[in-house]
Amino acid sequence: MSFEFTVLKEDKKSGARVGQFNTPHGVIPTPIFMPVGTRATVKAMTSSDLIQLDAKIILSNTYHLFLRPGDELIKKAGGLHRFMNWDRPILTDSGGFQVFSLTENRKISEEGVVFQSHIDGSRVFLSPETSIQVQENLGADIIMAFDECAPYPASREYIEASMERTIRWLDRCIAAKSNNKNQALFGIIQGGMFEDLRIHSAKETVQRDLPGYAIGGLSVGEPLELMKEMLTVTLDYMPKSKPRYLMGVGTPDYLFEAVERGVDMADCVLPTRNARNGYAFTRSGRMNIKNAKYKEDFQPIEQSCDCYACKNYSRAYIRHLILSKEISGGRLLSFHNLRFLLKLMEDIRASIIEDRFLDFKQEFYESFGY
Amino acid sequence: MSFEFTVLKEDKKSGARVGQFNTPHGVIPTPIFMPVGTRATVKAMTSSDLIQLDAKIILSNTYHLFLRPGDELIKKAGGLHRFMNWDRPILTDSGGFQVFSLTENRKISEEGVVFQSHIDGSRVFLSPETSIQVQENLGADIIMAFDECAPYPASREYIEASMERTIRWLDRCIAAKSNNKNQALFGIIQGGMFEDLRIHSAKETVQRDLPGYAIGGLSVGEPLELMKEMLTVTLDYMPKSKPRYLMGVGTPDYLFEAVERGVDMADCVLPTRNARNGYAFTRSGRMNIKNAKYKEDFQPIEQSCDCYACKNYSRAYIRHLILSKEISGGRLLSFHNLRFLLKLMEDIRASIIEDRFLDFKQEFYESFGY
Repeated sequence: MSFEFTVLKEDKKSGARVGQFNTPHGVIPTPIFMPVGTRATVKAMTSSDLIQLDAKIILSNTYHLFLRPGDELIKKAGGLHRFMNWDRPILTDSGGFQVFSLTENRKISEEGVVFQSHIDGSRVFLSPETSIQVQENLGADIIMAFDECAPYPASREYIEASMERTIRWLDRCIAAKSNNKNQALFGIIQGGMFEDLRIHSAKETVQRDLPGYAIGGLSVGEPLELMKEMLTVTLDYMPKSKPRYLMGVGTPDYLFEAVERGVDMADCVLPTRNARNGYAFTRSGRMNIKNAKYKEDFQPIEQSCDCYACKNYSRAYIRHLILSKEISGGRLLSFHNLRFLLKLMEDIRASIIEDRFLDFKQEFYESFGY
Repeated sequence: MSFEFTVLKEDKKSGARVGQFNTPHGVIPTPIFMPVGTRATVKAMTSSDLIQLDAKIILSNTYHLFLRPGDELIKKAGGLHRFMNWDRPILTDSGGFQVFSLTENRKISEEGVVFQSHIDGSRVFLSPETSIQVQENLGADIIMAFDECAPYPASREYIEASMERTIRWLDRCIAAKSNNKNQALFGIIQGGMFEDLRIHSAKETVQRDLPGYAIGGLSVGEPLELMKEMLTVTLDYMPKSKPRYLMGVGTPDYLFEAVERGVDMADCVLPTRNARNGYAFTRSGRMNIKNAKYKEDFQPIEQSCDCYACKNYSRAYIRHLILSKEISGGRLLSFHNLRFLLKLMEDIRASIIEDRFLDFKQEFYESFGY
């Protein structure tokens, strides 16, 4: 049955759990990391690359696709799955985050947001209703409510007003959503770094009885300790029976902290962005492949890694490609970094099932150098 | 036996022939198109992509690899084949073309060329001896003599002096080459657009009894008719028993004209460069995927094409990627354009074997719109 979430195992010593989330395009094992394909492509990767990496679900951005090529075009193509040749699950965000972080001259009102397109400067309007309409045209399995991801730091007054509006917008999203059983709408909990506002937002959002809930407005520049605090507070008010998605998180430590507290899903552009800049994740820490010490290093990025780059190419070669600004360099490191996070989540799932999650976390932190 | 060239079939109505050239890394069927991997990577493609496209041999550039990462480093890596994870044949050029086309403040003397590196502005020296040394460190199957590819147009005096020096440089290349049986040195025939100089250069070069010969200094901006004339003149003085390589040619018409006159090998950056700029080769002509008419065109680039892009993605999707400046766009079109030329050469080989090369050429020209 679509959108049924089953918890298969709960860690005895933490909030971590292993589950599975059924979607029309397949079952997602949780906790899961979702690679980001902003413009209907995970940068430098094709869909067969992502299958090879065993990505179980990817995320795509409503804001970007709305502006180009347009959701109507993608609908005509048969939806985002067919357009980008990806038949596993997709999650689309609502466009809220991008409207607030990428656009200029935006005007927020109760009705929605008017902003300038970053492509041609034209004035565009996005609201709860249009966001849902666009996401229905895109046809992702999981769609997100239109929210405001407030900046950090921000005043209590700003956060409170924004959070209350996000709840009102959630109701409009629910009302706007058609009866399509193939799309699940997730609500987003906001509230900035204010405990009581987080709790209020969580309670209100959960009252709407949705198939899943997300935590927004974290990992926006605040210290890790504060993020952990807010995460803990928020998760306490989210039902264990529904998937819990922490938005925009993708460094190994944030993923561990999130999973430890009961988060099931996360996404981030970091693995592919880092890759293009020459950074690789390894179990012994972050590697800057441009460093001169890798010049004549003919080992793979990581001996134990099963990714295409590590099975076939050396650090020296990838370093050469990155320094030469060859597309293949960012591509090979994208293979590695995506596989690193996907494999990390596989290992985390295994550790929870084998009742050794916190031990695994400690081993990983020691090895990584956290 | 390495570097044995066998003509398997000669066309009765033209100079076209089908052959095979044995190299230490495998047999090359001819006529063949060689994708260019300037900096030890065919742009945006990995070695497994090239295997999937069934590239039989690739070309890499001595000039670029000499400057970065350096031929000594590649030698330490076990040679270019291991460095870039490609175990089929490789041909390296001599660096001559790049020294004359890419560098500033170069000084040509009998000894060699001093030029400024395009990477860090440092002064670098390349000569017949250093070019051979670099190419031996790289370890390609086929290496090229250090020559001057003269510009077009150029005076008879300039061309004659340059061509004579190229012959003297060839003798120095032959003398500099070690006794390594795994590398074949090809001489390069120059002579600009002067028939008698072409003939003189061809006779002198062929006298050196090398395992193969190249025609340089064509397709440098001269009209197609002049190119064909010079090609015909030059090929008349090249033995049929050795592979004949026309350097820097990669549009379908130039390939047909070359093969018709007896050329066996060609290379060009065009398929991948065009791809990154949004141009696709098709049997019905060149397609500019950015054109608005492809906006909602959900057909593949070319229905009959067996490449990864055509099997999996639509024109509308690839257009979206190219307009969005996504790496995947150039990558998918590179798949298509490379496969297009490789398949064209497969079809040309088949047409020669089946005694219908000129018919095939005519059909292709009519369909392509030449």
